[in-house]
Amino acid sequence: MGHADRVTPERTADLGFARLDLDRERRTGTPEVVYAAGKTPEQTVACLAGLLDGGAAFAWATRADSETVAAVRRRWPGATVDEQARCVAVGELPPRSGEVVVLTAGTSDGPVAAEVAFTLAASGVGCRRVDDVGVAGVHRVLAVASDLAAADAVVVVAGMDGALPSVVAGLTDRLVVAVPTSVGYGAAFEGLAALLTMLTACAPGVLVVNIDNGFGAGVAAARIVRSVQR
Amino acid sequence: MGHADRVTPERTADLGFARLDLDRERRTGTPEVVYAAGKTPEQTVACLAGLLDGGAAFAWATRADSETVAAVRRRWPGATVDEQARCVAVGELPPRSGEVVVLTAGTSDGPVAAEVAFTLAASGVGCRRVDDVGVAGVHRVLAVASDLAAADAVVVVAGMDGALPSVVAGLTDRLVVAVPTSVGYGAAFEGLAALLTMLTACAPGVLVVNIDNGFGAGVAAARIVRSVQR
Amino acid sequence: MGHADRVTPERTADLGFARLDLDRERRTGTPEVVYAAGKTPEQTVACLAGLLDGGAAFAWATRADSETVAAVRRRWPGATVDEQARCVAVGELPPRSGEVVVLTAGTSDGPVAAEVAFTLAASGVGCRRVDDVGVAGVHRVLAVASDLAAADAVVVVAGMDGALPSVVAGLTDRLVVAVPTSVGYGAAFEGLAALLTMLTACAPGVLVVNIDNGFGAGVAAARIVRSVQR
Amino acid sequence: MGHADRVTPERTADLGFARLDLDRERRTGTPEVVYAAGKTPEQTVACLAGLLDGGAAFAWATRADSETVAAVRRRWPGATVDEQARCVAVGELPPRSGEVVVLTAGTSDGPVAAEVAFTLAASGVGCRRVDDVGVAGVHRVLAVASDLAAADAVVVVAGMDGALPSVVAGLTDRLVVAVPTSVGYGAAFEGLAALLTMLTACAPGVLVVNIDNGFGAGVAAARIVRSVQR
Amino acid sequence: MGHADRVTPERTADLGFARLDLDRERRTGTPEVVYAAGKTPEQTVACLAGLLDGGAAFAWATRADSETVAAVRRRWPGATVDEQARCVAVGELPPRSGEVVVLTAGTSDGPVAAEVAFTLAASGVGCRRVDDVGVAGVHRVLAVASDLAAADAVVVVAGMDGALPSVVAGLTDRLVVAVPTSVGYGAAFEGLAALLTMLTACAPGVLVVNIDNGFGAGVAAARIVRSVQR
Amino acid sequence: MGHADRVTPERTADLGFARLDLDRERRTGTPEVVYAAGKTPEQTVACLAGLLDGGAAFAWATRADSETVAAVRRRWPGATVDEQARCVAVGELPPRSGEVVVLTAGTSDGPVAAEVAFTLAASGVGCRRVDDVGVAGVHRVLAVASDLAAADAVVVVAGMDGALPSVVAGLTDRLVVAVPTSVGYGAAFEGLAALLTMLTACAPGVLVVNIDNGFGAGVAAARIVRSVQR
Amino acid sequence: MGHADRVTPERTADLGFARLDLDRERRTGTPEVVYAAGKTPEQTVACLAGLLDGGAAFAWATRADSETVAAVRRRWPGATVDEQARCVAVGELPPRSGEVVVLTAGTSDGPVAAEVAFTLAASGVGCRRVDDVGVAGVHRVLAVASDLAAADAVVVVAGMDGALPSVVAGLTDRLVVAVPTSVGYGAAFEGLAALLTMLTACAPGVLVVNIDNGFGAGVAAARIVRSVQR
Amino acid sequence: MGHADRVTPERTADLGFARLDLDRERRTGTPEVVYAAGKTPEQTVACLAGLLDGGAAFAWATRADSETVAAVRRRWPGATVDEQARCVAVGELPPRSGEVVVLTAGTSDGPVAAEVAFTLAASGVGCRRVDDVGVAGVHRVLAVASDLAAADAVVVVAGMDGALPSVVAGLTDRLVVAVPTSVGYGAAFEGLAALLTMLTACAPGVLVVNIDNGFGAGVAAARIVRSVQR
Repeated sequence: MGHADRVTPERTADLGFARLDLDRERRTGTPEVVYAAGKTPEQTVACLAGLLDGGAAFAWATRADSETVAAVRRRWPGATVDEQARCVAVGELPPRSGEVVVLTAGTSDGPVAAEVAFTLAASGVGCRRVDDVGVAGVHRVLAVASDLAAADAVVVVAGMDGALPSVVAGLTDRLVVAVPTSVGYGAAFEGLAALLTMLTACAPGVLVVNIDNGFGAGVAAARIVRSVQR
Repeated sequence: MGHADRVTPERTADLGFARLDLDRERRTGTPEVVYAAGKTPEQTVACLAGLLDGGAAFAWATRADSETVAAVRRRWPGATVDEQARCVAVGELPPRSGEVVVLTAGTSDGPVAAEVAFTLAASGVGCRRVDDVGVAGVHRVLAVASDLAAADAVVVVAGMDGALPSVVAGLTDRLVVAVPTSVGYGAAFEGLAALLTMLTACAPGVLVVNIDNGFGAGVAAARIVRSVQR
Repeated sequence: MGHADRVTPERTADLGFARLDLDRERRTGTPEVVYAAGKTPEQTVACLAGLLDGGAAFAWATRADSETVAAVRRRWPGATVDEQARCVAVGELPPRSGEVVVLTAGTSDGPVAAEVAFTLAASGVGCRRVDDVGVAGVHRVLAVASDLAAADAVVVVAGMDGALPSVVAGLTDRLVVAVPTSVGYGAAFEGLAALLTMLTACAPGVLVVNIDNGFGAGVAAARIVRSVQR
Repeated sequence: MGHADRVTPERTADLGFARLDLDRERRTGTPEVVYAAGKTPEQTVACLAGLLDGGAAFAWATRADSETVAAVRRRWPGATVDEQARCVAVGELPPRSGEVVVLTAGTSDGPVAAEVAFTLAASGVGCRRVDDVGVAGVHRVLAVASDLAAADAVVVVAGMDGALPSVVAGLTDRLVVAVPTSVGYGAAFEGLAALLTMLTACAPGVLVVNIDNGFGAGVAAARIVRSVQR
Repeated sequence: MGHADRVTPERTADLGFARLDLDRERRTGTPEVVYAAGKTPEQTVACLAGLLDGGAAFAWATRADSETVAAVRRRWPGATVDEQARCVAVGELPPRSGEVVVLTAGTSDGPVAAEVAFTLAASGVGCRRVDDVGVAGVHRVLAVASDLAAADAVVVVAGMDGALPSVVAGLTDRLVVAVPTSVGYGAAFEGLAALLTMLTACAPGVLVVNIDNGFGAGVAAARIVRSVQR
Repeated sequence: MGHADRVTPERTADLGFARLDLDRERRTGTPEVVYAAGKTPEQTVACLAGLLDGGAAFAWATRADSETVAAVRRRWPGATVDEQARCVAVGELPPRSGEVVVLTAGTSDGPVAAEVAFTLAASGVGCRRVDDVGVAGVHRVLAVASDLAAADAVVVVAGMDGALPSVVAGLTDRLVVAVPTSVGYGAAFEGLAALLTMLTACAPGVLVVNIDNGFGAGVAAARIVRSVQR
Repeated sequence: MGHADRVTPERTADLGFARLDLDRERRTGTPEVVYAAGKTPEQTVACLAGLLDGGAAFAWATRADSETVAAVRRRWPGATVDEQARCVAVGELPPRSGEVVVLTAGTSDGPVAAEVAFTLAASGVGCRRVDDVGVAGVHRVLAVASDLAAADAVVVVAGMDGALPSVVAGLTDRLVVAVPTSVGYGAAFEGLAALLTMLTACAPGVLVVNIDNGFGAGVAAARIVRSVQR
Repeated sequence: MGHADRVTPERTADLGFARLDLDRERRTGTPEVVYAAGKTPEQTVACLAGLLDGGAAFAWATRADSETVAAVRRRWPGATVDEQARCVAVGELPPRSGEVVVLTAGTSDGPVAAEVAFTLAASGVGCRRVDDVGVAGVHRVLAVASDLAAADAVVVVAGMDGALPSVVAGLTDRLVVAVPTSVGYGAAFEGLAALLTMLTACAPGVLVVNIDNGFGAGVAAARIVRSVQR
């Protein structure tokens, strides 16, 4: 809008049904990632191809169902797929540096933690997972507290009562990103209980993303790692 | 309704605006207690008088505001008043036996814990309070874990994230009664966050009462103590 | 965390995707029970095996679907299965003592009551079920009021309006654990109506668990029975 | 809209800020009643005057605060005022016939029951109040069950758990109108808990009005009485 | 509970999983009706048989799916079935008297209106349906206003905005029972929008039942008709 | 109701289950459109036929599933079908004039935008779609800002955070109609998040329709175009 | 952002605590209007002064409390104040053209309608108010239906059930902007009931703004009038 | 709990009503900060004194009302007070390093931004505020985009639609902490709308804290700055 200091036009690839933001990585550190949930398999494939055509060495999609995975594999037989994370990628994964510790409260939180881990890998960030350390046996998280000190950031994934981030944030000085999951039933209300718990955590400094949003947590953790390494 | 094994007529005192249930203590172990919140000071005084007239040695009211307290004191100068708990009693407190440990997550939960403690005292049950042991400094609750083993039951009072009962229930084999409080703001939603956390506690066996309901928690804990002593 | 009086290290079995809390029974009276809902059948089988390997004589899982039941049976042909309760157990059930009365408001609440009953059996506690005594025909619950006096605790399972615990708690001095169920439609809001009713029960001392959480109610009732028998 | 069988024009008095529906009584049996809550005292007085000018022998307002009551009394010194019901009327009350029984669960529900009673009186219907018969002492409502048979209709006013209409509707064949009140705290959510309970009452045939809507319950009960007497 | 005027013991048939309330018709005018939603087909058949065995000439079930209907027909080939209403009945329908007009706002509200109609038929009450008179074309409801005067009561079934009862209650002096339906999407929130509209209807005297609860509306309307005919 | 200036009787076609409002186009500019969601395929076909019989040159239905589409095609082989929009039409589409720009925030909002576009076409209004211009790459919407000036109105379709209308309404003086979609997960709450965002847009003048209601947005935009062309 | 066709820099006045958008009128047709609710009286005065300094002939604020009004009057003794609308303006009101009809359902909706009217006046648009035509006496709105045909747009303001826009939109071909108000109690939930009703209006083409947002409705209506006059 | 690598006992100061966590700064980087909202002025003063006694050079409280501020000033006349932020501190503020940019969408978000700024100052972190850059005039945020590149982290404070973080996160590679505020009315639902918007931001990597939680955002931002500087 006429600001002389921002003269580089943003590059966009217009596919008709999609308008790929080719300069997002330059601006934000993370390229546009395809959200496959509301797209046909063909649309997801076209978006991945468009990103590669736009110069990316690596492109990927989240929330890919089996049909989409199959379509991607037909086009790129060597695609990287993580079924638990529902992620699929084409091109070469970046080298990794830094480390983020990803904790889960229970085994059922695994798929969301897998999405965090995939996002970190796709962002060139190292990841160490520690699973099933919920507060019902609080010694389990105390036992890993010393490991947190080696991390650049900590991601905590928890459903049901979502109490784990409150405990973790009181044990470490690392940034704690909390991911509520839809694990649980009844008054868990599809993750709402865990979300509210994390937002009202009595330990200050807990930062929260959307329910089941492993991707967002991974992107944020990667931003932290890049800030540290800058 | 014609059941031959229940021939004792229940005694009721009809004050017009109220119908005092004089046999509630016989049936349930706890006499009718006056809920002053929706009553005029005069109505609360009349209810207390009616309960004493009905044979009770001791009668009390919860949620009493300062006007009600003043009215009670005008009628019974020696009334027992706990301003933090908003409770007022007339007659002689019963002797105590058994012990319930009452934990709070933070200082702001104090008034609700005071209502628990008053209810226990009015029910003839001993009470030990341990305040401000929230999970942001989880060593505080670990430090008192051994004390829980001496209790007949444990009441945990917590607002904000309401995470304390999950941790406590994983440390003790005593019954854990959880009281969410309206302490907090924003997504605490007047205690809703803590309520949902407690209902979905990952440690099984946590039992929950209404938000800020110290009275109900106290009555339930007294029932447990009486069961133990029976 | 350096507290000299808690030197026994907690035993944990690390399966990678799960971290079994082998000393939970020692601490809380109830061993870790496998929540099968978010696990693959293979994961549930591995958790059960890990608990037995850790020294348990008996291990079990809740929320087991038919695939999980089949997988358990393949590994342990003599497994105990309750299809209505969706529970499956391996090893020898403990002997029973004490008695908990489990009431339902209607026939549709049966599966949740079955989960309560299974949990009591797995906890070595006796159980007596009385079904379909909802308040629309209040004489039905009055007819069983005298039976409550023989119980160590009472569990009330109700959906729709969830009104039964209010009536029951006014008839007995036993601890009343209320389980809202998701039975009903429309403004029942998947059990929310019953949950709120129970939380605001006009009879004090009603303690509430999560919607459809028969397991939690059973664990709590077992804690009460153990407190009585201690 | 051109329907030959509805040629009588509806009479309306246009006060600028209000458009009084002078034929509402002819159409619906109940004249327009002034809702004072969002009006200035002067507007309420003008509306009452407009209704009297339009031919009514009697006009009244609900939700009148003390300022409004004072303004009405300045204009009509002989106005009928019920402070608990927050109602004020001018003109001569109609003679009464028929009888509606109005039950309350607790003393705190009194103001709403008073609004029901005032509405019945203003509608020319007899009213019998029976207060404080909540289900925590279910014998209290059983004791009055036989009285219900004499009524043309039953109105049940209850806050907190709102369980009373379920019990009452199982004891009588009269139409049961249920009024949830905002009595209670925490998970009562300003009457929402009682509202949901009444909507999901396990006894069929319970009809529900808005929270604290004693006026609406009274109008409906009067419609029933008129139907019976027609 | 010892009340000398209620000596007739209530008759109950105990099927184990169900406790049939055989005297409900005597007390309330409507016999126990089987809610098939949470029951197996076998349980529904057993309940219907138990009611007939208990002396009823006619027994029926609501919310019957196709499996249940088939099971009933296997046992009683002449059973009466209304698939749209999801109701099934055995025995002889009672003769009809009185008339209730049932209005729907749109065609999609038809199944709920069918449940109202079936309930009225099963209760021996006449029914006249007038469909698709929603307020988007308000002349449609005005055209049928004169028909309402012949009715003993009016049931209005509406989803989406649920505005129809407000208009109807301003046109007639008959009792208006409003049934919100789950028709609609988005902010209709499965019937919540219509429910709130009806509860806050600006025309007083609208009485509301649960979302999609055609059965409850029918039972209430039948109570009105019986009151009129008494 | 007797108003001399509205003597033309409204024409209605009574199909029993439906009452077609044949004069709706005369009154409101848009004819009755069939909402197929709660109707059987046969009912939708009958409604379309009834509208054509009533004199319409063109009739159509929204929310048509594949069965309904098939039924319509059997009756009218030349029917116009838009599968993404779930719309089906019979008769001749009107000629177009005016132009509405339809923006989407993301590809997943496509089906709702397609319903807007179909509605505009069926209303004789031109439509220009611009897809995938969400605010995560705000240059994309800035790039199309100048195009908005050529439009008679702007429709903005967005799910997830629903932030696009706020930005658009600050860039143009055209009327902005905002359509929240159910795209997203977790705290998107099926479109509620986007709905609330749009209702509280900090740019004034944003007008909102129901979640996923492309039809309503199209009808409103057509009203604007007709107002402009009047 | 480098787009050659948008070279005019936007003018902004930076007051430190506020950044006045001086070109908003050029872009959107409506200048920046001061939202006084979260500002000190001094801040509001400073913003108004800044807008006048930036070249505006007229500046105004909404949601002004009495303190703010007094502060404005001290600075500009001739300020235009509408107390019911809570609006205050300085400078010369623009001349008016076009006409918007503003309907209210009840007298209590008056303040919101006053905000609509003030906004229209401040936007140079004529306004005709018609008050208290709620659907409980539907003849009142039918009586004014013919007046709607003269309007460029219609704004409907309604609380409680919010049903009026559904009826109005079925009677006119003008654009209908619906404003839910917080008038009502209980299940009106501070305007939520009316909001949901309007969003789900069975008459298509109703456009909705935030609860009590008379300002937004006025801005939108002014956009329509400008579109018509363009 | 017996872990040999964590032998340092945590130091706690027990004030009876509070249990000060004196080693929180060592563990988490931020000392215990007094939440004054639920405490008496005397309790807040005692907590501050206890923290200083425990060795802190600096102690402070949030959510301090005027009474609390006065009490603190009586005890420590040189206390640092920020009335807009409602914060009060005693002792010497730490030196600052690093920089966090704090953006607000509007002037009304100022108090929350002030709490962020105070927290950063108390944490020894530099802060640059940029106010009133909401998306209704999106050029305002574009104009400051280049400034973001100099920051270690960005905090975005916004009420109403809460759309600003989505735009900001698409313009920068810095970590974006989003703070929803309770600014707004109606469907803003006390900050819920902004909260949901931020949780569902279409730009990935936005991290969210509780509504109005400037303190939490500041603590998290300080953690990031410390990570960068480590």
